[in-house]
Amino acid sequence: MSEPYKILVAGGDMRQIYCALQLAERYDVSVTGFDSSYTKKLKNAVLSENKYDCAVFPVVPVSDDGFLSTPCFSDKIRLSDIADSVRKGGLVFSGLDGEKLSDKFADCEIVNYMNSEELNIRNAVPTAEGAVQTALEELSVTLSGLKVLIVGMGRTGTALTEILKGFGADITVAVHSHKGTANALLHGVKSIYTKDIGNDYGLVFNTAPSMVFNRYMLSRFDSSTLFIDLASKPGGIDFNSAIELGIKVIWALGLPGKTAPVTSGKIIAETIDEIITERRKQYV
Amino acid sequence: MSEPYKILVAGGDMRQIYCALQLAERYDVSVTGFDSSYTKKLKNAVLSENKYDCAVFPVVPVSDDGFLSTPCFSDKIRLSDIADSVRKGGLVFSGLDGEKLSDKFADCEIVNYMNSEELNIRNAVPTAEGAVQTALEELSVTLSGLKVLIVGMGRTGTALTEILKGFGADITVAVHSHKGTANALLHGVKSIYTKDIGNDYGLVFNTAPSMVFNRYMLSRFDSSTLFIDLASKPGGIDFNSAIELGIKVIWALGLPGKTAPVTSGKIIAETIDEIITERRKQYV
Amino acid sequence: MSEPYKILVAGGDMRQIYCALQLAERYDVSVTGFDSSYTKKLKNAVLSENKYDCAVFPVVPVSDDGFLSTPCFSDKIRLSDIADSVRKGGLVFSGLDGEKLSDKFADCEIVNYMNSEELNIRNAVPTAEGAVQTALEELSVTLSGLKVLIVGMGRTGTALTEILKGFGADITVAVHSHKGTANALLHGVKSIYTKDIGNDYGLVFNTAPSMVFNRYMLSRFDSSTLFIDLASKPGGIDFNSAIELGIKVIWALGLPGKTAPVTSGKIIAETIDEIITERRKQYV
Amino acid sequence: MSEPYKILVAGGDMRQIYCALQLAERYDVSVTGFDSSYTKKLKNAVLSENKYDCAVFPVVPVSDDGFLSTPCFSDKIRLSDIADSVRKGGLVFSGLDGEKLSDKFADCEIVNYMNSEELNIRNAVPTAEGAVQTALEELSVTLSGLKVLIVGMGRTGTALTEILKGFGADITVAVHSHKGTANALLHGVKSIYTKDIGNDYGLVFNTAPSMVFNRYMLSRFDSSTLFIDLASKPGGIDFNSAIELGIKVIWALGLPGKTAPVTSGKIIAETIDEIITERRKQYV
Repeated sequence: MSEPYKILVAGGDMRQIYCALQLAERYDVSVTGFDSSYTKKLKNAVLSENKYDCAVFPVVPVSDDGFLSTPCFSDKIRLSDIADSVRKGGLVFSGLDGEKLSDKFADCEIVNYMNSEELNIRNAVPTAEGAVQTALEELSVTLSGLKVLIVGMGRTGTALTEILKGFGADITVAVHSHKGTANALLHGVKSIYTKDIGNDYGLVFNTAPSMVFNRYMLSRFDSSTLFIDLASKPGGIDFNSAIELGIKVIWALGLPGKTAPVTSGKIIAETIDEIITERRKQYV
Repeated sequence: MSEPYKILVAGGDMRQIYCALQLAERYDVSVTGFDSSYTKKLKNAVLSENKYDCAVFPVVPVSDDGFLSTPCFSDKIRLSDIADSVRKGGLVFSGLDGEKLSDKFADCEIVNYMNSEELNIRNAVPTAEGAVQTALEELSVTLSGLKVLIVGMGRTGTALTEILKGFGADITVAVHSHKGTANALLHGVKSIYTKDIGNDYGLVFNTAPSMVFNRYMLSRFDSSTLFIDLASKPGGIDFNSAIELGIKVIWALGLPGKTAPVTSGKIIAETIDEIITERRKQYV
Repeated sequence: MSEPYKILVAGGDMRQIYCALQLAERYDVSVTGFDSSYTKKLKNAVLSENKYDCAVFPVVPVSDDGFLSTPCFSDKIRLSDIADSVRKGGLVFSGLDGEKLSDKFADCEIVNYMNSEELNIRNAVPTAEGAVQTALEELSVTLSGLKVLIVGMGRTGTALTEILKGFGADITVAVHSHKGTANALLHGVKSIYTKDIGNDYGLVFNTAPSMVFNRYMLSRFDSSTLFIDLASKPGGIDFNSAIELGIKVIWALGLPGKTAPVTSGKIIAETIDEIITERRKQYV
Repeated sequence: MSEPYKILVAGGDMRQIYCALQLAERYDVSVTGFDSSYTKKLKNAVLSENKYDCAVFPVVPVSDDGFLSTPCFSDKIRLSDIADSVRKGGLVFSGLDGEKLSDKFADCEIVNYMNSEELNIRNAVPTAEGAVQTALEELSVTLSGLKVLIVGMGRTGTALTEILKGFGADITVAVHSHKGTANALLHGVKSIYTKDIGNDYGLVFNTAPSMVFNRYMLSRFDSSTLFIDLASKPGGIDFNSAIELGIKVIWALGLPGKTAPVTSGKIIAETIDEIITERRKQYV
């Protein structure tokens, strides 16, 4: 590497701070969009034209008001100021919504790091840990011996299964295909088809991105059942019906960043590092 | 049973409410020492002489001011009022400190239910779940892959081990005997002797009731290590030294009642039920 | 179903007997290619033209001599006799090598049930159990505490991981991608890259279908290490080199049928049942 | 240690060879009662008066014919020859039946190492692994998903539980006390009282040293259930009734020595080493 690769980490929550710290071990990293109390071990960016090879945005890059998303900053930053400071042909990393940056970063390659399969597998662990933390906080019974339903046997369902087995919970996984059944067996837990879900669970985690718990389904449950929805919006639980039926639902989104910001920032940093490394190989 | 066995549940926190509800399935239960908002499905006691066969006190029965311990009550109750309402030869259950009741209940048999080995084994589960909840709340990294030290391989250490295995934590158990080593092997985890504890753990649970982490031992740890002390007072960690060294210690006592009051109340109720059943067999 | 669907189960080992028994719960099943001692609860086929809607062949349908593969039969059966007895347009199930049947069954649809992803996920469990049985039989030390390497974190690697965690083995998974690393984390075990495999393992399971353990790699291991190769031919271990180096390698193929024929037969039957059900829906 | 402590390992199976090899790392060890093919890395004893400080006998020291138990030796050895070679006041280790040595070793201290609680906890692991190996060999279904009953939640029951959880078996533990129930909960599995044992298990492990499975109890089971008895003689299963009822029972004794002789020998050696170390401290 003849000259250092210059990365600008722009905005976001604590995750992005930890992401920046991790990237700084291998790259020349500057940050912007954080109050100085957050950035003690980091270099604050002085934005000027074409300065950076790469910009890193948070999972959700743009606020509703059109400025950079900066929950840890008492001021505002325009996207165009960031855009000016990245060189032509530079790499721009966003979590989601990369298309919202495409106008301003027309000369750059925009990559949504949240599309990385590896990142999503790794995020399943802090997501599941955060979901279990939420359950422990909300429930007045132990997870040990509790009848727990996990809807979906993908990454998050798998991570939840592994954790809840340790608690001695009585786990059932709801699946919608024979493959799901087989995956449940592979992880040593019972499964049922989503259409056959019973109503005697003390705790239900939804990880499936479809409306599994509509009004009819919810109406069969006792109001003592706790629902935790981990599926992205619009989620898999009819919230209005749940409220009317007196059923408690917790919509737990963005758990990795909330419950394990260090791990979460590290996962983002390592994903970005891999992509940069891969890109640079191609140009050698 | 010719006439119903009358039990008075007197004071305590939510655990005792759930304990009363569980006992009410088999006995004639009245409660005192709770605001009416807590006791909707329960019968409020009208104290009068010799009315009850049995009184159930909370884990810590007497407040510092000498009255009944009633954290869920806006008034005060004298122990002597409870004493008058229990018949001669009646059974009096206290968690700890039964001897503080011996003057007033001179004609009764006083039993400390916290001495039950079964209750202590069962309490290990909510204790461990509460300890893990605390860790999840405090840490900004995942338990998955974290180096965790559990000091002591008794009931609570065993329960912690089982749960943390599910999280994929890198567990080491500190023991002080060959038997401890063997128990760690039986549960599939590594062990070291307490005297050989290293300093590269991100999380330390102490369950041993002796001063393992004195100033010298603590001084070897990085300030990023989180300590959670589950041992009864005086505990196993030198708090003053920890504060001076900038090490975070959480003294987590009475976890079962705090984190799983329903399960905890049920455990107390079932322990009391067994003792009553056993006693009544002897008198038939 | 106006008239019963007639299935002919033709040849194979005990798995096919159990497969036939399971299919007989829903279909009109006849068998051929088994001595009568094996088929007590089953109907022996009398082969005649166009009699059957469907034929079920074993995983490997044809022997080296060109006859039906019939390890449980003291006589021989020609494929053409089977072919004549299946009606035009019938379904023909083979495990592998369906193309070897295409001449004779030109008027039928040939399906290789071993291509079913679900079957392969489900087969991972008996494969892993059989592999662990082999390890228990061969080793003179316990799996508890043993350093075990699992090469590959696919279905079989996952099943092995789950089982060996219960034994308290010290598991490392060898992967060749970041995704593999993430999958190992999801299952709570350490991982390394295949190229960085160390040499201090007491037991190595290979599940990867490529030559990982060539002569150089093997030469780094102690002769006390036990290798169990679960990858299909040609496998991932250089056997000739292993023999020369005095390293014990067990090539464990077809484990599901050998170690758990009942489960294995049931898996095949359920896979076939699903495919038939799906096909018949399409024709309604 | 001014002069080396001289140990004579006398007779027994492969375990004793591995025990001798392990002891030889710290002591001056000689062996007798093994054919030379077994003792390549060990020193063969030349018995002469008062030569040894200590003799180590196998678990069962004396054969039915009154000679030393020597399954790995083509000749016979008289106990009196061993006795003569141990100095007055020496230590004599036997597994069981130490009293059978008391006449001949009247001037020595006889210790039954099988009385060590630590050894018994550690032996639970190879016992459970051997029992699971037996089950895998005998069953034609997978342990995954199988209904398994474990009678007794002591050391061996605990070790079996841990292993079988990894297999994804559907485990129930039969206990005879509230403490047993609590211990099952602590390990995350269901429990029932021994008197309430059902009859729908595919596999039953008995670890309880009392006649749980008498004729009546056995008669309720299907002949397809496999019983494995791990309790010492007379065991917990009525074998004659089982044979008459066509129920398969495997009486699995001495598993540690059979299935994991290296681990087993090491456990014996370490137990003996501790006892010697302890004794020698007292005399300093």
